[in-house]
Amino acid sequence: MTVDASAFLARWHRVVAEKNLGALGDILALDVTLGAPPYWTKLQGRDVVRHLLGIIITIVEDFTYRREWISGSDLALEFTGHVGDRELQGVDLVTLDGDGRVCNIDVMIRPINALIALRDSVAPRMAEFLS
Amino acid sequence: MTVDASAFLARWHRVVAEKNLGALGDILALDVTLGAPPYWTKLQGRDVVRHLLGIIITIVEDFTYRREWISGSDLALEFTGHVGDRELQGVDLVTLDGDGRVCNIDVMIRPINALIALRDSVAPRMAEFLS
Repeated sequence: MTVDASAFLARWHRVVAEKNLGALGDILALDVTLGAPPYWTKLQGRDVVRHLLGIIITIVEDFTYRREWISGSDLALEFTGHVGDRELQGVDLVTLDGDGRVCNIDVMIRPINALIALRDSVAPRMAEFLS
Repeated sequence: MTVDASAFLARWHRVVAEKNLGALGDILALDVTLGAPPYWTKLQGRDVVRHLLGIIITIVEDFTYRREWISGSDLALEFTGHVGDRELQGVDLVTLDGDGRVCNIDVMIRPINALIALRDSVAPRMAEFLS
């Protein structure tokens, strides 16, 4: 089956621009996994992944997608933004399932000071959500 | 001018597999810039970038390229490896100039513990090189 990655990308951009968590859930597979920038062990499940992505696109200011690559059902999406006065550059590596939903997303960010600032902002909110 | 990114990629893989720093220099532009994972300010210049890349591909064990994306003269190259017992996943975002040489490369790595272990191994060697 061919996945329409371009159609997915249009939905993804709309969701991120609108910070629309309901619509974000619709484009995540139920058992989606996410490799977060600070940790090796992946998060799993639509609710927790949606919550984390929602926090990230809220905390990273001026979140803007830059270069994008599509190869079959795999995408690489570069983004920039800042956390306070710490500029950052990052990449989402996204894999779509046969239904065009995200089944895995790995996120990498540079530099360290922005990554740590992001982690320190996200961690308490995720702990609250998970408790 | 159309850049042959596939031909570049074949050379790049050969250089990395052989850890051949001489040949690595041949595929870097003279004024190449590199955004290293820990720092925001970019390194500039063939000699310093070649040296840093040489250190990274030596320190990261089982350095292996995974998914690859090409879009015109921009490439996204996923890799995995480990520093000691710390597994890592990373991405090179590479831009080629009109001669098919790297004019910019940004490197992002997750998770934090591997990134810090890498930085702590690389920093003294770079300091020695730069002094």
